[in-house]
Amino acid sequence: MAPHSPATASPFTFVGKVYLVGAGPGDPGLMTLRGKTLLECADVVVHDALISPEILAMINPQAQRIDAGKRRGRHSMLQPDITQLLIELAQEHAIVVRLKGGDPFVFGRGGEEMAALVAAQIPVEVVPGITAGVAAPAYAGIPLTHRDYSSSVVFVTGHEAAGKYHPQINWSAIAQAAETIVVYMGIQNLPHIVEQLHRAGLPDTTPVALIRWGTQQQQAILTGHLGTIVAQVAATAFSAPAIVIIGRVVDLHTLLPTQTLATLTQLQA
Amino acid sequence: MAPHSPATASPFTFVGKVYLVGAGPGDPGLMTLRGKTLLECADVVVHDALISPEILAMINPQAQRIDAGKRRGRHSMLQPDITQLLIELAQEHAIVVRLKGGDPFVFGRGGEEMAALVAAQIPVEVVPGITAGVAAPAYAGIPLTHRDYSSSVVFVTGHEAAGKYHPQINWSAIAQAAETIVVYMGIQNLPHIVEQLHRAGLPDTTPVALIRWGTQQQQAILTGHLGTIVAQVAATAFSAPAIVIIGRVVDLHTLLPTQTLATLTQLQA
Repeated sequence: MAPHSPATASPFTFVGKVYLVGAGPGDPGLMTLRGKTLLECADVVVHDALISPEILAMINPQAQRIDAGKRRGRHSMLQPDITQLLIELAQEHAIVVRLKGGDPFVFGRGGEEMAALVAAQIPVEVVPGITAGVAAPAYAGIPLTHRDYSSSVVFVTGHEAAGKYHPQINWSAIAQAAETIVVYMGIQNLPHIVEQLHRAGLPDTTPVALIRWGTQQQQAILTGHLGTIVAQVAATAFSAPAIVIIGRVVDLHTLLPTQTLATLTQLQA
Repeated sequence: MAPHSPATASPFTFVGKVYLVGAGPGDPGLMTLRGKTLLECADVVVHDALISPEILAMINPQAQRIDAGKRRGRHSMLQPDITQLLIELAQEHAIVVRLKGGDPFVFGRGGEEMAALVAAQIPVEVVPGITAGVAAPAYAGIPLTHRDYSSSVVFVTGHEAAGKYHPQINWSAIAQAAETIVVYMGIQNLPHIVEQLHRAGLPDTTPVALIRWGTQQQQAILTGHLGTIVAQVAATAFSAPAIVIIGRVVDLHTLLPTQTLATLTQLQA
């Protein structure tokens, strides 16, 4: 039996630590210093499907890698299986990194994983990452807030899961509450969302931007208005994963230059 | 006259580039890789008042440093003066870094600075940072979203500036729209905000957390409820700068361990 096996009855039973690390939106330059160090020190990394190759390349070459990637409609691992896996890994390894796209606590299910680990008495720490809802618009020249246009921004998921505690997001209140609306996973339900916002009084002329692969080399943006965007999506076959931005700040996109992806290599050269 | 002087009439007039860099919430481990590289390469850095010393220590020792710090009520530089300064610096220096707390586009006035630079034909790039509204609650064990409690979060400023385009934030709609409310600069107006949310139907028992110096060594948290928090602030003399979190996710704070500030040094030791 291995000396650190969880089955050992010794009072000195080994327990490692799980780090819930946000990988940010994709551009490796937006990874945090602490996140990178943890990837370099990790014994094992359990990562999501959509982590960019440049960030996966930061992982300690000796570390075990587990792809827990789940994408809508084709789960490669169920959430309870992922949390159970993390618990088991922490009983065998000192540094277990759970690498998640964006930020672990912004639609990342990090809260559930953290709670499960705490319940299992596994030490856990969260390392925030830059969420795509902030970074993708920034790279497209869209400030989420602006003194002249928006002093509030709401982040909401457009993909309401089964088993949720209430049936519907209050799109009507959202339309009144925030001058900028950022919808995660909103492409599939876009017709429904647009209809709800329209009913709540947002005019057809309200600017909308869809950003796919935000901050990455293949970043693509589609801009239009509430009255046109559904047809534009159909016409261009614009598909998930993407962030939807709704509000007057989207118009600044035409004023400001779309950010060219500048890598660390380019800067240092 | 210096060869790169803006007064040179040559068609090859020198123009540098301005980088609007988010410094994140304070913990140097949450700085981005690209942000750190830019600080190391900068010719001049114009920074806000509340940037942590560990992040200022990343700045190229040869770089000129300008503290444009402005805190509520005592502006050391007015916004138009800052943008004018950035324009002038870009006519003399290759790499001008405008270092801002948190994220430049989340209540950071980055949109205004970017627009002014574009109007002056100065190349500009934004490097997002982790905003305090995400990171401070994470370090306090509060996930902003959670499958069982919150599928929407609103970020709003509690400090409505003079000259704004509309007189009031719609607190009533915000109360209905988002299960988690994050208020930036909300301490001074807290009694007003609490009253508005209460009128909008949020019960006295709604959990509230105030986090001061989030993610930094001196991080402090005060938790209570909508019915008690104003008296608690008075009793404890809890003061700005702080982030206010309102919603059921705050209760997870008691379940999850408050994050100990783990430095890169500790990890590598």
